[in-house]
Amino acid sequence: MRAVDIIARKRNGQSLSREEIEFFVRGFTAGEIPDYQAAAWLMSVALRGMDARETADLTWAMVHSGATMDLSSVAPFVVDKHSTGGVGDKTTLVVAPLVAATGVPVGKMSGRGLGFSGGTLDKLESIPGFRADLSVAEFLAQLRRVGVVVAGQTADLAPADGKFYALRDVTSTVDSIPLIASSVMSKKIAGGANGIVLDVKVGLGAFMRTEEQAIALAETMVRIGEQVGRRVVVVISDMNQPLGYAVGNALEVREAIETLKGRGPADFWLLCRTVAAQMLLLAGRCQTPTEGQLLLEETVRSGAALERFRDLIQAQGGDPRVIEQPEIMPQARLVKELYAWQSGYIETIDAMEVGLTVALLGAGRARKGEPVDHAVGLILAAKVGDYVPAGQLLCTIHANDEERLAQAERRLHDAFLFSPQPVAPPPLIHRIIAP
Amino acid sequence: MRAVDIIARKRNGQSLSREEIEFFVRGFTAGEIPDYQAAAWLMSVALRGMDARETADLTWAMVHSGATMDLSSVAPFVVDKHSTGGVGDKTTLVVAPLVAATGVPVGKMSGRGLGFSGGTLDKLESIPGFRADLSVAEFLAQLRRVGVVVAGQTADLAPADGKFYALRDVTSTVDSIPLIASSVMSKKIAGGANGIVLDVKVGLGAFMRTEEQAIALAETMVRIGEQVGRRVVVVISDMNQPLGYAVGNALEVREAIETLKGRGPADFWLLCRTVAAQMLLLAGRCQTPTEGQLLLEETVRSGAALERFRDLIQAQGGDPRVIEQPEIMPQARLVKELYAWQSGYIETIDAMEVGLTVALLGAGRARKGEPVDHAVGLILAAKVGDYVPAGQLLCTIHANDEERLAQAERRLHDAFLFSPQPVAPPPLIHRIIAP
Repeated sequence: MRAVDIIARKRNGQSLSREEIEFFVRGFTAGEIPDYQAAAWLMSVALRGMDARETADLTWAMVHSGATMDLSSVAPFVVDKHSTGGVGDKTTLVVAPLVAATGVPVGKMSGRGLGFSGGTLDKLESIPGFRADLSVAEFLAQLRRVGVVVAGQTADLAPADGKFYALRDVTSTVDSIPLIASSVMSKKIAGGANGIVLDVKVGLGAFMRTEEQAIALAETMVRIGEQVGRRVVVVISDMNQPLGYAVGNALEVREAIETLKGRGPADFWLLCRTVAAQMLLLAGRCQTPTEGQLLLEETVRSGAALERFRDLIQAQGGDPRVIEQPEIMPQARLVKELYAWQSGYIETIDAMEVGLTVALLGAGRARKGEPVDHAVGLILAAKVGDYVPAGQLLCTIHANDEERLAQAERRLHDAFLFSPQPVAPPPLIHRIIAP
Repeated sequence: MRAVDIIARKRNGQSLSREEIEFFVRGFTAGEIPDYQAAAWLMSVALRGMDARETADLTWAMVHSGATMDLSSVAPFVVDKHSTGGVGDKTTLVVAPLVAATGVPVGKMSGRGLGFSGGTLDKLESIPGFRADLSVAEFLAQLRRVGVVVAGQTADLAPADGKFYALRDVTSTVDSIPLIASSVMSKKIAGGANGIVLDVKVGLGAFMRTEEQAIALAETMVRIGEQVGRRVVVVISDMNQPLGYAVGNALEVREAIETLKGRGPADFWLLCRTVAAQMLLLAGRCQTPTEGQLLLEETVRSGAALERFRDLIQAQGGDPRVIEQPEIMPQARLVKELYAWQSGYIETIDAMEVGLTVALLGAGRARKGEPVDHAVGLILAAKVGDYVPAGQLLCTIHANDEERLAQAERRLHDAFLFSPQPVAPPPLIHRIIAP
């Protein structure tokens, strides 16, 4: 078998065999197939596509390119969640302790922000002392003891994915459904999850810009699950405007705490309980989504969810006083209010523009490994569909640099669109796709 | 400008600007754009294509990636020819001295064989003492003094093409019309040709398998010529069966000498005078193809063409006695005759199979830089359309190794197809495409 022939077959639009895919992934991971051949192959996959069987084989080959986690000693059935990334998406901060508080263990490996999209670990690290880099032993011990853990990738899971991703990033082969699906799924499967709820974002502030793309990605991931024996459910949710009101690390932690106290934004809480209910269903903790949602409401009302978040923070070295005193997190030096420059119904709050603006303020990073500013970001005061008279507060900007603040103001000006006619708020949950 | 964005634009099927193409070619040649980005870009070009303007811009960018030859001190209008490569294609050996003998200077840079396809330089080096590696100064001096030179690439012409080709070879991006056309044309233009006759082969033993592909390539190259100010004519010729009777280095030189003596195979001589007449037309040496062909017939009859071949050999250090005593070239140790195993009209002599068989005997190379055996090859005794009774000679195999000879016999058995009904010989010249 030769790499060049495998590239040729995909270039010609043929379906690759399991052996060919394994040969390519193994050879590339071992450094025997050079980057330039992998780059040509990735482009041929991006342009020619892969069928369901090929995508599952690719996922499986990436899972077996490195170590895999075995969580069966901790729990017989472990559920995980993953979001394809959006703006203001602090769902894990609420869902992980919430689901754990119902008695379903959640051992979650999260990522860091890149570009317009924030990362769960960056958010949690706004909490003084919080440690995200746990060893495999620490991860397992905490999962057993506290029932919830949110950490960076502990073991060297699916190393092929990391190598492929670095290459995709510089060869314009990131947005390819089989490549995205196999990347997400290989890490989740290698991480030991038995059931996986995927939150696929669609809209202006998401990698998937259209409903069709989002459905195609969702169906691909559900099919991978079927082929490799994992239960997968996909929630397709709106990401045209930011989720909730807060965007920026510490500001989002604050909003997550409010939500766990039962006082969160309506849209954000709807998404949290939709995703969490699907996790409970997968784990057999409830029989219907409605039953699950009632259980989750009760778990918040009783304070159990908030307590579990406190336990999580404490277990990972964070200062649990943050629950009552969020001001112990970094706070921005400059706070500037932005007022509506015209009257009207808000038609658009461009999530991508908001995400890029907040990244520009310092909350995000352009390149892996760069530090982030936990304090900066913004708080929306209105959302799509709201009527705003001229002069009313639109949002509050938190910044640490005058020049960047001025830039952010200019950018945000273009992110809002007003309509003289009433605008219906967009539905948040587009659909749920299950096997 | 960033390479990754240029890749993205081509991946999305957009047309690249001249500036983008120049940026990419210059960056890749300088080593600033890494191989993996070039590989992804080549695959996107192979799958998305390029329009006429982009292909001309790519050609021009490759021309200017290195030195260019200026032949104006030697001749005001220099014609060149190029074949896309076939089996038994010894056309340059006849056409170069033939055209030169009519008074039109021919300074030709040729290549070596690779895979199923032979190379002019390998053939000429069958002649004892012949030197193909001339310096630029030697090339120009011989062109001025003898009016004909056939050498390897002297200067570092179109270095981008060499770098791209090395990558295309290992990333399955060789057969792409804009990439082939720009590769051929950039070297010819950098080599100083004012007029270029391209022999595009089509059929079983050619890179272009279908008439449509060949026409598309031909039209692309003619359009490049128009856009960069060079006169280009394309002859599309048949390469389903080998050209002439001889395949293999020294055997082909022998057939070329016979042809220059007026005793060559009909099909081969037809192709030689068709290509040569187009060269005379481009150079203004004749007004019509017919006038050109009559002049060429006379040039052979008078012995002037043969004499010019002798001059060429002598000028490049070869032993001119080869003209009368071809047996001074290497001769194979084993000569085996293959007889028809059935009666019938020959329907197919698969040129690709013949080419690969002769390469297997040692006449060709699988990888650049490998040595070739000048002695081995085969001589056909019949061609497509001929009636052959069972037991009649089909071809003679010249080999230097018993095992390879046995393998060659088996392969050749599959290369011949017989028909009980009469078979019309295929037309050799499919069409001529000019601006």
